[in-house]
Amino acid sequence: MTPPYPIVTIAGVGLLGASLGLAMKERGLAQHIRGVGRRQSTLDAAIARGAIDTATLDLAEACDDADLIILCTPAAQVTDQLDSIRSVMKPSAIATDAASTKQAICAHARSTWPTPSHFVGAHPMAGSEKSGPKAARPDLFEGAHCILCPENADEAATHSIQSMWEAVGCTITTMDPATHDRLAARTSHVPHIAAAAIARAVEDSTNAKPMIGSGFRDTTRVAGGRPELWRDICLTNGEAIIDGLNALEAQCAHVRDAIERADAEALTAFFEGGQRARNDLIDP
Amino acid sequence: MTPPYPIVTIAGVGLLGASLGLAMKERGLAQHIRGVGRRQSTLDAAIARGAIDTATLDLAEACDDADLIILCTPAAQVTDQLDSIRSVMKPSAIATDAASTKQAICAHARSTWPTPSHFVGAHPMAGSEKSGPKAARPDLFEGAHCILCPENADEAATHSIQSMWEAVGCTITTMDPATHDRLAARTSHVPHIAAAAIARAVEDSTNAKPMIGSGFRDTTRVAGGRPELWRDICLTNGEAIIDGLNALEAQCAHVRDAIERADAEALTAFFEGGQRARNDLIDP
Repeated sequence: MTPPYPIVTIAGVGLLGASLGLAMKERGLAQHIRGVGRRQSTLDAAIARGAIDTATLDLAEACDDADLIILCTPAAQVTDQLDSIRSVMKPSAIATDAASTKQAICAHARSTWPTPSHFVGAHPMAGSEKSGPKAARPDLFEGAHCILCPENADEAATHSIQSMWEAVGCTITTMDPATHDRLAARTSHVPHIAAAAIARAVEDSTNAKPMIGSGFRDTTRVAGGRPELWRDICLTNGEAIIDGLNALEAQCAHVRDAIERADAEALTAFFEGGQRARNDLIDP
Repeated sequence: MTPPYPIVTIAGVGLLGASLGLAMKERGLAQHIRGVGRRQSTLDAAIARGAIDTATLDLAEACDDADLIILCTPAAQVTDQLDSIRSVMKPSAIATDAASTKQAICAHARSTWPTPSHFVGAHPMAGSEKSGPKAARPDLFEGAHCILCPENADEAATHSIQSMWEAVGCTITTMDPATHDRLAARTSHVPHIAAAAIARAVEDSTNAKPMIGSGFRDTTRVAGGRPELWRDICLTNGEAIIDGLNALEAQCAHVRDAIERADAEALTAFFEGGQRARNDLIDP
């Protein structure tokens, strides 16, 4: 059987892009995978890992004969890349991305790409505190949820992009970009900022070291993630993140008030509510 | 060889107390372990788990012939229990605790117990989001740090209590109670409150569910802990916790300002600082 996509171009061959390359190869989804990056060393590592077949530093050149283009770069780079590929793509080619914020990207595509569009925004909820092509795994997307934002997109393109993400192991949920970004701020972006803030708020790290338990380790784990990625997320989802930070602050202010009043009942209710909220979101 | 402690009384046979019972038995540290609790069902479960030999609901009765008394109850109960056991203990008996806050408890002991005291405050950094004697494990303390607060304590008592915690697997660090509580607020209590606050700040949990990734799961894991335990921690370490919450809030305000100014450099620096702070505290 011929793979559904003869030529696939993956822009950005870090953990996500390289894992996607491995996953597509393992499942026979592509005949040839071309990687695009800004650093030759990363591209070389992705080839060595077996995630891509060939590599180039030139995005436009890498896209003019591609059947499927996947932008696996941080959110802030995706809009510019959409401009670069729009004019060179084959008319039949389709494109998706994997960025953690969707509103700015999808709004840009809506205002610059033809309608119905061949771009279908996506956000696979997969990752790790590790980064780079060396950490890539073909099973990174297995069991992961992937949010699809097909607003304005061509039906056939939507169907094909959805099938591709499903084929590498994702479960699809469709959402409009604004809802995605609002929910992502509360479930991912604010937790990440909080993790970094918690780590930064520890003074006197030498003496604090023996006090570190598994709780601190888990609560702050995501603070090990790539600073540039999280900077870009903040820059492309500012409004929803500020809203979420205000909500977090209101919760903390509530605890502070309860402590000042020595209000045992309010404190119990706060922690019970936290337990309940978490149980509602996470299947045991 | 005769075990070092003929009769050990453990007050509170939840996860911590029952695990300590199992650990002491496994290492032959006690001839007889007596459990004290407020609920017969919990005591029955601790006996069934093999963590204690006998059980009683009466703390004073359980302590008059004990050689070692270990209070494994939440912080808010320990001060009252110190009053109950002080007058009934044998002159040679020694006592320790396992509560997560130390200043209120050690101050109470200092003002009510004879000097040098036979009470040596301790805080083993061991636990789990699970609770109750059924979840008890004899290796719970293996590799854990235990903070000892021997201020005002008799030298022989300090030595014996330290040896006991070491024997069940702990590495000891000695600290004054105020330093302990200040560091515990930043490394444990504030992270826990933040985890609960993060979970509570997610609105619309039905739609948010597919957005939950391993980051959210880890960041909020400790929010599954027992509400009463964390209420007591807030009530017995209020000042240091409020100070820590203010520090957390200042960090979040810093991010909010950087987002509002679209200050990419400040955002990168914030996340780099979070990464560095975590690396300084956690051995890879």
